[in-house]
Amino acid sequence: MKGIGASPGIAISKAFVLKDVVIEINTAKIDNVQDECARLKDAIENARIQINNIKQKAIEELGEEEAKIFDAHLMILDDPEYTGQIEQLINSEKITADNAANQVTEQFVMIFGMMEDEYMKERAADIKDVGSRLIRNILGVQTQNLSEISEDVIIIAKDLTPSDTAQMNKQKVKGFATDIGGRTSHTAIMARSLEIPAILGLKNITSSANDGDTIIIDGMTGEVIINPEQEVLKSYQDKKAEYENFKKELEELKELPAQTKDGHVVELVGNIGTPKDIEGVIRNGGQGVGLYRTEFLYMDSDEMPSEEKQFEAYKEVLEGMKDMPIIIRTLDIGGDKKLPYLQLDEEMNPFLGLRAVRLCFVEKDLFKTQLRAILRASAFGKALVMFPMISNVDEVRQAKAILDECRKELDAENIAYDKDLKVGVMVEIPSAAVCADIIAKEVDFFSIGTNDLCQYTLAVDRMNENVSYLYQPFNPAILRLVHNVIKASHEHEGKFTGMCGEMAGEPLAALILLGLGLDEFSMSASSIPQIKKIIRSVTLKEAQEIAQKALELATADEVIAMVTEELKKLNITII
Amino acid sequence: MKGIGASPGIAISKAFVLKDVVIEINTAKIDNVQDECARLKDAIENARIQINNIKQKAIEELGEEEAKIFDAHLMILDDPEYTGQIEQLINSEKITADNAANQVTEQFVMIFGMMEDEYMKERAADIKDVGSRLIRNILGVQTQNLSEISEDVIIIAKDLTPSDTAQMNKQKVKGFATDIGGRTSHTAIMARSLEIPAILGLKNITSSANDGDTIIIDGMTGEVIINPEQEVLKSYQDKKAEYENFKKELEELKELPAQTKDGHVVELVGNIGTPKDIEGVIRNGGQGVGLYRTEFLYMDSDEMPSEEKQFEAYKEVLEGMKDMPIIIRTLDIGGDKKLPYLQLDEEMNPFLGLRAVRLCFVEKDLFKTQLRAILRASAFGKALVMFPMISNVDEVRQAKAILDECRKELDAENIAYDKDLKVGVMVEIPSAAVCADIIAKEVDFFSIGTNDLCQYTLAVDRMNENVSYLYQPFNPAILRLVHNVIKASHEHEGKFTGMCGEMAGEPLAALILLGLGLDEFSMSASSIPQIKKIIRSVTLKEAQEIAQKALELATADEVIAMVTEELKKLNITII
Repeated sequence: MKGIGASPGIAISKAFVLKDVVIEINTAKIDNVQDECARLKDAIENARIQINNIKQKAIEELGEEEAKIFDAHLMILDDPEYTGQIEQLINSEKITADNAANQVTEQFVMIFGMMEDEYMKERAADIKDVGSRLIRNILGVQTQNLSEISEDVIIIAKDLTPSDTAQMNKQKVKGFATDIGGRTSHTAIMARSLEIPAILGLKNITSSANDGDTIIIDGMTGEVIINPEQEVLKSYQDKKAEYENFKKELEELKELPAQTKDGHVVELVGNIGTPKDIEGVIRNGGQGVGLYRTEFLYMDSDEMPSEEKQFEAYKEVLEGMKDMPIIIRTLDIGGDKKLPYLQLDEEMNPFLGLRAVRLCFVEKDLFKTQLRAILRASAFGKALVMFPMISNVDEVRQAKAILDECRKELDAENIAYDKDLKVGVMVEIPSAAVCADIIAKEVDFFSIGTNDLCQYTLAVDRMNENVSYLYQPFNPAILRLVHNVIKASHEHEGKFTGMCGEMAGEPLAALILLGLGLDEFSMSASSIPQIKKIIRSVTLKEAQEIAQKALELATADEVIAMVTEELKKLNITII
Repeated sequence: MKGIGASPGIAISKAFVLKDVVIEINTAKIDNVQDECARLKDAIENARIQINNIKQKAIEELGEEEAKIFDAHLMILDDPEYTGQIEQLINSEKITADNAANQVTEQFVMIFGMMEDEYMKERAADIKDVGSRLIRNILGVQTQNLSEISEDVIIIAKDLTPSDTAQMNKQKVKGFATDIGGRTSHTAIMARSLEIPAILGLKNITSSANDGDTIIIDGMTGEVIINPEQEVLKSYQDKKAEYENFKKELEELKELPAQTKDGHVVELVGNIGTPKDIEGVIRNGGQGVGLYRTEFLYMDSDEMPSEEKQFEAYKEVLEGMKDMPIIIRTLDIGGDKKLPYLQLDEEMNPFLGLRAVRLCFVEKDLFKTQLRAILRASAFGKALVMFPMISNVDEVRQAKAILDECRKELDAENIAYDKDLKVGVMVEIPSAAVCADIIAKEVDFFSIGTNDLCQYTLAVDRMNENVSYLYQPFNPAILRLVHNVIKASHEHEGKFTGMCGEMAGEPLAALILLGLGLDEFSMSASSIPQIKKIIRSVTLKEAQEIAQKALELATADEVIAMVTEELKKLNITII
């Protein structure tokens, strides 16, 4: 069977099949509204106790940070928007508590699930988790207890909730294989964070595997084998050893620089969303942060975060990373990412709408509050500031002018900030890439946001599954634009180009980007070791030759085939 | 006062203020559903008689083609989706006929008004017109009769409906000035087609002007002057004479080629939506059609138009244009343009979704039906076929392969077609512009769709008024991409680049595009004479120097200022 390899590695173990509890919602009309409301109330109370227990266990086993998700669960339980609506529905529609909880949960999950932002998408999994718990409590349904697993297993399930994964005995769970889910689902994220292999989206693994079957999963290829022949088993045992060896090699690279065989050094840094993410960057040998997304401060809040609150968050990262460079991106909100306290128009094409700096120019107070917080924090480490969604040089000048206003205010107030703060822009709109030479005169650095750059350059919404096949970072147009941006920055002494889109952490892209002259690769922390290994395996000249070949090809497929072949020739393994 | 100059020219005349009839909808609940349905029925019958009368008058005064709009009105009256819903609403909600008609009309107007496509937007004006008529008939409200105007006037109104404009005495109406409406509203289109000046979107002209006031309107600047001083009046009388002189000069160019002073010839052609549009192209001296939009065949229909029906429509244009080149664009539907008989998913960002060839690859039968019809029609004139929304060379190959399948089928069926049919693509996605050299090897010509190219390159939905200020065809990125596309086509003997976006008909852009080497300018027919005059006023070398200057500037504003200055130096007037 073949699914989506969502976390790399190979596992060979017995199957533990998590039975999907069949929940039957009672859709009958009810007479006694009070009874149903009381059932709901009891279920909420029980849920609160259960979640607190799981949270305690999570703190002990996974640490404070990982356990925070259950605070989010408790917040959902306390959110009158959620439980209040369930109660209202019972009253207005005269339906059962389970039916009402089910309807409201589905509606919330749908709304959050439709959001582009990964952070908000994760919230959908949390709401689903809390909702299922509530419904099970209302109906008095029991579930299997994953904390009691006492032998090595691969968990086979329809899907895994945050509660499921938190309760697992981490020492015993060697992998996941599930019917549904994709690379950005909670289960995928959890598996990568636990560093165990996972295959998702297998459609019917739960009906194919039985408890105790021997299972092989290959997180690189997405393959699952049930009860393999002896020969197959042997070959996978070898492959597993090889993989573990590879991982050890990566581990050993941690303290070494990201440097080609002939001494060309690049910077490998991490993308982070919150201060807690810096731990992963440091653990993986990252030398700084190439993209600090500041949206979480705004999304996690019911009101505009104050200058003080932002200052503290930025300072925490700067101090935590001990003078390593931290590129702080100003607010990239609007379009599909909404804030409850900011009234925005509905837009027919939110990706082409009032987002990021465009919105910040309209909401100038909001923008200045953030810029002041960044400036103040810059006194405590090595901050760089970066403006997203720049389409022309006028916008760069406008953003810099507002930043200057803030500098002057702080000067007048005698507040310290880094006088040499570097200012850069995201290159994610095609016009900025085409006119990088014009914009380079106004900034200290570029960071190419390949996700959006691909979407606009190819006119593809990659979340739209009808057209996502056209989303091709290896399309020659993208490579040419990337090349153009790098060249433009290198025309000026001391200016550099980074990349903070997913392409920067893509092993197949590493040699091309290196050869095109990319100075800084910013990615999920866990990708850093592998990219470092690739870079350390070649000379700059070899990479340049590969990049040149890529620029001369006609299609994305040709580029991928060429680079795959070159990696093989160079004897570079990628996973 | 200043509004939107929606149709050029200067008019000086007395005001005729069209009173906005105040309609009071009775929102009370009703008891007698039968009575209300009977009122509705009578109103529909009266509307049918009225519209038929207007239609007769329109045929006599404007000709069969212009009168066809009233067939559309009659169709709306007969559409069970529309009048049926009104009746249903009376029954289900127990409301008055006027209230129900009002609600259903508003809903339909909103749905059609939200559509991107101009053709569908026009339908919104028709439904509004029919709806108002219906409500007036239900309530027995009388309106002013525009057919009885007997002296020269400028019509002042809140808005003008198709019925209003059709009933006007065309000899006597010298201009329009309205409170609402924009450049693409029905009133604007009507004014341009009648070649009388119009200023729309004046907000409160109806409350500022009175019957009999002397009014000056300047369709170029959008200015309206009420009861001008003698001096002002005199200056506008001069300006009017100058404008009429300019128009006469343009008229005299009709038979002359679009050729620079030093003999460089380009092609000036028209964009058309239906066969009836060819009359305007010929009248304005167009030498062919650079964009034949085929969507009308699909949108005007309740079912997929047959191969035969399409063949007839394409043949009509080819024969009507007597061997002049006609570029037929294959279906550009999907996203925001829907078809009632084609089930499409709702998309979060329709501009980045399943549109045009992307959709045609999925709906291959639909695509082949159209391609067969185009091939068959190609035997009757000089057709070229063009694929929209190409983002990579694979799509070009795929589209050509399907075209080849159709050729083989026709060969087998012994049906004639043009064996030399030229095949081109729209360049409207940035990646296609960046990789024009790759795509040029596969096609005979390019046509740059600047409207979409600007939207994607600048990541701006120009219909979104919050960000439309960023929609800049003169942005250096656009000029560079246009240049790149032209260069790529000229690398190959006999290949050419046209442009069918609005930029091609923009007087300020003409010299830059000429200088960049554009071979074919396709535009609204009425823009052709002016663009021809500009081209005939310079040498190619002068245009090339201007284009070179434009490529070296940093912002759209700088480009516009430079070209305005150069036009002044060259003594070229634009309106």
